[in-house]
Parts: sequence; C-alpha cells; structure tokens
Amino acid sequence: MLKNNEYFDGQVKSIGFETQGDHCSIGVMAIGEYKFGTAAPEKMTVVKGALTVKLPGHVEWETYSAGDSFEVPGDSAFEVKVDVPTAYLCDYL
Amino acid sequence: MLKNNEYFDGQVKSIGFETQGDHCSIGVMAIGEYKFGTAAPEKMTVVKGALTVKLPGHVEWETYSAGDSFEVPGDSAFEVKVDVPTAYLCDYL
Repeated sequence: MLKNNEYFDGQVKSIGFETQGDHCSIGVMAIGEYKFGTAAPEKMTVVKGALTVKLPGHVEWETYSAGDSFEVPGDSAFEVKVDVPTAYLCDYL
Repeated sequence: MLKNNEYFDGQVKSIGFETQGDHCSIGVMAIGEYKFGTAAPEKMTVVKGALTVKLPGHVEWETYSAGDSFEVPGDSAFEVKVDVPTAYLCDYL
C-alpha cells in the first residue's frame, strides 16, 4: 500500500511504502528550513539535491548530497536547511 | 512546487518537482505489471527495490536494481514488471 503524506503545508511531501520487510518513504522537500521529529530511528539518503542537517546533540551543520546518507536516533529531532528542492529516501530502522 | 501524481488506480504514485533546472519525479510502484508511455525522453533510476523492464524495440527483459539507471526515448512506451514495491527517480531529459 502506498500512502501519501504531507508536512509543513505541503512544502514536504512523501510516499510511504513497505518493501521486503523494510518500512520506508520517499519524498521531496521544497526550499525552506524544517525540523523533523523521529519516532523510530531513521536512515535518510539524499536521492537528488542536497540537505544541510543539524543532527540531535550536534552543534555543526553538515551538507549531504545525492548518494549521501545520515542516521537519526529514534525519539529525537533534526533540523534541515534546503537550498534546492531535494528528493530523499527514508528507511525506518 | 511539489505535485502528487497517481497512475494505475493508485498502484503507482509519484511526486513531481523541479530542481536546478531539471524536471523530475520520484515515485513508488506497487507489485504488478505496467506499461508507461513517454512524452519527453526519460532517465529512470531505481532507488530501492528492482524493476524488470522491456525497453521499446527490445525483445529481452532486463532487471535493474537500486542504483541502476536506464533511458527511455521520448514518444515511446516501456513495460515494467515489479516483483517488490520499488522506489524510483525519473529525470525528464
């Protein structure tokens, strides 16, 4: 089953799906700044574009480009700056 | 602007977007068999899962896994068999 999700007044849209036992979503973020909360731990992979991210407990921002991944602990939050519309894959771990 | 699209009674869903001058979409295909028509030429990249594809003018089916890409000419059509729900990136060339 494919599930449409929408966040931040439609500035972030995603499609949730399950494949081979993995719970995932792919999505696109429009230009902007966002703070996402996590329930499960997540692995985020940039598919196209770039995300500049501040992970929980970090003071530095780091930029991830297409093909790069980062992991976020569960029950936490991370901040994202998006300078160009960016597509991502999220694997719930 | 992020645009939700839906094909084949919701078995294929995608989100269209533009980034850095490129017109793109990301999407997910549920298990099934599909035939897609193209207007512009397209480059399809498998993000997660696998697509078994028959390109226009080909007799053989070929399987593309995560990270693999294939190109489809404009004004044509290609057939896809999907054995596991699969996420893809489509770049309109």
